[in-house]
Amino acid sequence: MSLNIPSLDELVKQLARLPGIGRKTAQRLAIFILKSNDGYADELVDAVIHVKENTRLCKQCFNISEHELCSICADGRRDSSKICVVEDIVDVMAIEGSREYNGIYHILGGVISPLAGVSPGDLKIAELLDRVDGGGTKEVLLALNMSTEGEATMIYISNMLKNKPVEITRIAHGVPMGSHLEFVDQMTIGRAIASRQKI
Amino acid sequence: MSLNIPSLDELVKQLARLPGIGRKTAQRLAIFILKSNDGYADELVDAVIHVKENTRLCKQCFNISEHELCSICADGRRDSSKICVVEDIVDVMAIEGSREYNGIYHILGGVISPLAGVSPGDLKIAELLDRVDGGGTKEVLLALNMSTEGEATMIYISNMLKNKPVEITRIAHGVPMGSHLEFVDQMTIGRAIASRQKI
Repeated sequence: MSLNIPSLDELVKQLARLPGIGRKTAQRLAIFILKSNDGYADELVDAVIHVKENTRLCKQCFNISEHELCSICADGRRDSSKICVVEDIVDVMAIEGSREYNGIYHILGGVISPLAGVSPGDLKIAELLDRVDGGGTKEVLLALNMSTEGEATMIYISNMLKNKPVEITRIAHGVPMGSHLEFVDQMTIGRAIASRQKI
Repeated sequence: MSLNIPSLDELVKQLARLPGIGRKTAQRLAIFILKSNDGYADELVDAVIHVKENTRLCKQCFNISEHELCSICADGRRDSSKICVVEDIVDVMAIEGSREYNGIYHILGGVISPLAGVSPGDLKIAELLDRVDGGGTKEVLLALNMSTEGEATMIYISNMLKNKPVEITRIAHGVPMGSHLEFVDQMTIGRAIASRQKI
């Protein structure tokens, strides 16, 4: 499926490295970029260059930021006594999308995973403890994914925090809104029943 | 779902312009590009710049090429007495993938479509007639998509060619109605080419 055009093949190869983009999709995207006459290719190139040049990690929470502090940490209207601990930047986006949380964040950069060679020292756990020790924190909300590694990391962090004067909470796991019980997996139903609440 | 980071928002916006890429996928791709530490962003940028700088249209068949003639037109082993007429460059890729065709191509750049404002003069039809008039062509194989516009364009071209000393053929029905060549599996395309019929 190659046209023997080295520069096009190279672009297809690079696009196919993106997550979720297979070779056939990469080919279609490459042709689209190649055929665009409205300056799209230049705008795409500029956007990639600028995002790499202008962004860094927030020095406090390790979110992506264009400044020393990210827009969430720098926002005086947010409740800085609450720290929500997440694995990744996409999780911040998901939680912000819910408009339910007005505290600040701490991005670990992954979860503890001996199989993948990720130990606590590879994550921003020490930095989290430093933030709590710095004072002003009342609640640490653990919002890690429900994988084995996520659970292990949650346990590890709550152990590290248990003697500190903060409340440790975790997001509720249960039946997703709008879903039917018959289609929900057994693990989730079990969890939803175990953590049932009084009405 | 925005993090209020202008350069990231801009990259998401540009990626979402790609065909088949929605806002959420664009966000995931942007984060991937942003977080890549292995020089991926630079390689992607270089690939986009090079493909735009180094490619042009083949002066004979209007395929993408890095030289005056594309690699197919310039290949002495191809049978230049056969011209396969297609809508788009992706169709050339699809047909080449079937390994069933050893002639050369002519890329129209679209199909006649009054609704979209595309008239015969907007396509490379005059150039096709010139190629045939130039001599050496024994067969014109029409391999347009099975849409109403594709059919109409096929009829238009066969009318323009009917008094010229060439055989006019079309790929066999077998390609499902309404589907686009670029998404059809190679076996089916190969079969359709092998059993092409006289119009």
